Amino acid sequence: MEHELLGTIKLASDIKKLNNDQLRRLCAELRDEIIDKVSETGGHLASNLGAVELTVALHYVFDSPNEPIIWDVGHQCYAHKILTGRNIAGIRTENGLSGFPKSAESEHDLFVAGHASTSISAALGIAEAKKINGDENSVIAVVGDGACSGGMIYEALNNAGRSGTNLVVVLNDNEMSISPNVGAMAKYLAKIRSKEGYFRFKDNIEHTLLKIPAIGKGIFAVLRSIKTFFKDMFYSSNTFEHFGFTYLGPADGHDIEMLIRTLRRAQSIKRPVLVHINTIKGKGYAPAEEKPSKFHGVAPFYKENGQLKKESEYSFSSAFGKTLCKLAEKDDKICAITAAMTDGTGLREFSEKYPSRFFDVGIAEEHAMTFAAGLAAGGMKPVFAVYSTFLQRAYDQVLHDASIEPKHVVIGIDRAGIVGGDGETHQGTFDVPILTSIPGITVYSPSDYNELEKDFEKAFSAEGVQAIRYPRGKEKIVPENFVKNYGDFDYFENKIDCLIVTYGRLFSEAVFASEETGASVLKIGKIFPVEHELIEIAKKYNFVFFFEESVEFGSIAEHFGSMLFESGFEGKYIKRCVSGFVSHMDAEKALKLHGLDRESMINAVKEALK
Amino acid sequence: MEHELLGTIKLASDIKKLNNDQLRRLCAELRDEIIDKVSETGGHLASNLGAVELTVALHYVFDSPNEPIIWDVGHQCYAHKILTGRNIAGIRTENGLSGFPKSAESEHDLFVAGHASTSISAALGIAEAKKINGDENSVIAVVGDGACSGGMIYEALNNAGRSGTNLVVVLNDNEMSISPNVGAMAKYLAKIRSKEGYFRFKDNIEHTLLKIPAIGKGIFAVLRSIKTFFKDMFYSSNTFEHFGFTYLGPADGHDIEMLIRTLRRAQSIKRPVLVHINTIKGKGYAPAEEKPSKFHGVAPFYKENGQLKKESEYSFSSAFGKTLCKLAEKDDKICAITAAMTDGTGLREFSEKYPSRFFDVGIAEEHAMTFAAGLAAGGMKPVFAVYSTFLQRAYDQVLHDASIEPKHVVIGIDRAGIVGGDGETHQGTFDVPILTSIPGITVYSPSDYNELEKDFEKAFSAEGVQAIRYPRGKEKIVPENFVKNYGDFDYFENKIDCLIVTYGRLFSEAVFASEETGASVLKIGKIFPVEHELIEIAKKYNFVFFFEESVEFGSIAEHFGSMLFESGFEGKYIKRCVSGFVSHMDAEKALKLHGLDRESMINAVKEALK
Repeated sequence: MEHELLGTIKLASDIKKLNNDQLRRLCAELRDEIIDKVSETGGHLASNLGAVELTVALHYVFDSPNEPIIWDVGHQCYAHKILTGRNIAGIRTENGLSGFPKSAESEHDLFVAGHASTSISAALGIAEAKKINGDENSVIAVVGDGACSGGMIYEALNNAGRSGTNLVVVLNDNEMSISPNVGAMAKYLAKIRSKEGYFRFKDNIEHTLLKIPAIGKGIFAVLRSIKTFFKDMFYSSNTFEHFGFTYLGPADGHDIEMLIRTLRRAQSIKRPVLVHINTIKGKGYAPAEEKPSKFHGVAPFYKENGQLKKESEYSFSSAFGKTLCKLAEKDDKICAITAAMTDGTGLREFSEKYPSRFFDVGIAEEHAMTFAAGLAAGGMKPVFAVYSTFLQRAYDQVLHDASIEPKHVVIGIDRAGIVGGDGETHQGTFDVPILTSIPGITVYSPSDYNELEKDFEKAFSAEGVQAIRYPRGKEKIVPENFVKNYGDFDYFENKIDCLIVTYGRLFSEAVFASEETGASVLKIGKIFPVEHELIEIAKKYNFVFFFEESVEFGSIAEHFGSMLFESGFEGKYIKRCVSGFVSHMDAEKALKLHGLDRESMINAVKEALK
Repeated sequence: MEHELLGTIKLASDIKKLNNDQLRRLCAELRDEIIDKVSETGGHLASNLGAVELTVALHYVFDSPNEPIIWDVGHQCYAHKILTGRNIAGIRTENGLSGFPKSAESEHDLFVAGHASTSISAALGIAEAKKINGDENSVIAVVGDGACSGGMIYEALNNAGRSGTNLVVVLNDNEMSISPNVGAMAKYLAKIRSKEGYFRFKDNIEHTLLKIPAIGKGIFAVLRSIKTFFKDMFYSSNTFEHFGFTYLGPADGHDIEMLIRTLRRAQSIKRPVLVHINTIKGKGYAPAEEKPSKFHGVAPFYKENGQLKKESEYSFSSAFGKTLCKLAEKDDKICAITAAMTDGTGLREFSEKYPSRFFDVGIAEEHAMTFAAGLAAGGMKPVFAVYSTFLQRAYDQVLHDASIEPKHVVIGIDRAGIVGGDGETHQGTFDVPILTSIPGITVYSPSDYNELEKDFEKAFSAEGVQAIRYPRGKEKIVPENFVKNYGDFDYFENKIDCLIVTYGRLFSEAVFASEETGASVLKIGKIFPVEHELIEIAKKYNFVFFFEESVEFGSIAEHFGSMLFESGFEGKYIKRCVSGFVSHMDAEKALKLHGLDRESMINAVKEALK
């Protein structure tokens, strides 16, 4: 497809000059461009295709960045990136754009997003700032129905509805969340979604009710007496109206003219408005419309047929899922909880085999954790499977609900450590500091699938909060002479006065560094609490290195080092952790950049011994 | 008042033998007991008095602990404690009961509470466990309207309504939260609250609608055509019904017979039910009914007139409020945000002087933090004033929304360190590890009011996330010869080869220990990042102590020690932090218990130098 219009859009405001036919043509070109580029690099496809008309309409009606658009989660910002002068070729790779809104890229990205349900809070803050400063421009938050299972949305709606700001919340309702929505809100949305022309109909009814005559007897008397009550209930019958918003919708999210009309009305109302639109995930690309879940976050694929260029491989997530099914077969107390990540966390098989013991709670990590603690209080053995980055949401629930009075809850922490293309908002580099701050927690980190299974066995037969963290992707190769005993640690003595301490997938790197340099290796499996036995081993060396996929402050490397020094160690201790936020790039590259690959280890050892 | 009935209640089930007159008498005795004991120790009064009839009715109808009652926040559990055989004399003191539900005290406290909005999640977990195990007993969650501003409530409702469990949620609606509710939900509740007999009325209307004849012309034709629609909207007109609950109420929460009838109905329905009751905060004690906010959490008072035995004193919270008003007078960009703690955080005066720049968002810390980041993105200078323990709720928001793309947000962390009578759920001993794990954050901790003011001045003229942590209560006395310069640190050299490093209110303790032992003192003001200058000072000593009101792992003491050792320090480094969860007791006693008072410091120094 020729991108004859797309080439002419240099500024977001250039859209405003187009007529309706041109706008429709522009949408087609945008879709083509998105499919083309995402097929090469992978990325979020279905949600982006569904938001094309909305994005065009938003830029047509509103004046970004004076009227900023805040994208919730950011799974639908590709068209926005293109329309604001950015090239999405190579998106999510080291030299390409971020897959999420990023203010460093453009003034049109006022607020970062990557975790769900934050957009209304952020947009309300910006809108209140505008109100204080007498700026009448609108602020727009675009939120998907999936994010509506997150509590922050309600906290924000509760404050926004009566704020008197020019806030426009667009609810992009595509019946989408990463796993299908299961909660009441999803059903509720489905219900109002199905009432086409709801707000027009409402006008009619109001009109009619106002004309009910005072007949004054029989059934009509009753009706008259409840007229006001009816009207009142009618007007507060929509949850968003309860929250004080003016509700517009539902509108067809692929009808550009209707969208423009509706958004213009929203812009003109000058108070908080919720615009409810219906869109189709994957719109305009048959394979994605058919399998929207597969094309939510997708690896590179062949454009012609939607087939993945490389089929997905067995991974730590798969190993977790398999392990859990195996354990659940023998123990009918084992339950699994996910926050809208059934596939991502490897729980699909479990969910099908043990539906009564499987709970997808929606994007609601806080609830998930406390719910898990409740299941444990009720005698079950729950595992909450969650990406490291999303566990950040549930810190207080791990502490307050599961640890003060210890509950036997297992946390399966997927995507721990460096994650790759998703960048800063998705790194699993903070779970170690936050978990180890909480008294009583045990943390494991397996380096291969076998060890993962052993760790879950240990965790389910222990007490209190047991966390097991494992990386995205596959286990790594380890030479045959490094045979692990799968205890709480493995110690491989070598010939020089130098010890490398590490855990998880970095063990493989350490092993190669050991072969090259002659350094010994101490691989920890139970990484916290740090056992004194490990310190005793390390004390035998004059050079001790600790390599870890975690930020430094609060890392195991720091805890280990503290204990080592306080025990009288007088040698050289060098810890190497992840520094700062890690931007989007291939995970292997990021590991290298942070000095966590084998070459860096080798160089570090050689340098120290010089 | 003679407690003739109270004396006969040994087991919760003993209530079931009483008749209605006796139940009313029991309620009066419970009130008398609560007023009597809380007047001596202080504690939560108004909310407890409001929940007396509810508690009696719950134990009358349900079979605790087989039908467990989960109290949200736990501000209303005193009558429950008494009825389950516990003596509340000395509550919240070292040798008395906890002021919150605590499973170590009784099998009737199945789940800890202290932070708001967790009860439905926990109760749902227990209810799902019962369902899996074929146990038909109910599980009851009692939640106040104040907690309904917290997002977890919605996350839980979203999952609970259609769970098919025997979950009974009692919404104890007393128009109470620690500060008055300001959000849409509060207004919505006020609206349904005012519709007495709502559910009876609803039955009538349904009946009437079903009888509308098919007249088939004019206005009646319209009415007929919309009959189903009307009915549908009617039935989904209540937010709780949207969530899939059967709604019962509102019922008078002080009418014991009505409560018993309503709860029995809830118990019999065998699916998720929401029972909405109206209660009066402080019910039965005139001073508390008149000033419920004053008697929410109250210090010891004279029973006769409700006067405090000791008027509240100027504190770090007051100093924060005063400082902020002073700074806001000169800088009209400064805004303040609280999560339902206007008085607790010292923001009352600010809220009255600068209403357009003041935001009470309800019990919604996640939203509060992201909202603050939004205000900053809009050019304002927000401070989020929050208790350390509640900041735990917003870890991900500090990281994801305020730090990945740094926003200039100031966090005023009140109740940092050890807090006293509220115990485990309210300690401020985790903010240091979680904040210092996040790249780019600056943390201050003033030791007196003057320093607090300087720190806020610095924070508002800096960039990125700036956190200032200060303790509950008053500044401590420091001898005149220890004159602080209010820079980022103060160094007081003394005569022996021993250095005490500390910050915040422990500085006073350190100073007295210094006078007694001759140890030098390094008081840090900007506690993070740890500056190398400080390490250089410490390196001059062979004995370095670090005393800190934080858990150990992730503490400044740990970060400082790591840097010290890695810089080549070969002396003895001893850090003393808070170990584990701290139970309820006077803060000074807790400090002593954890080795953080002056005597412990003196002994530690003397011991080391022996």
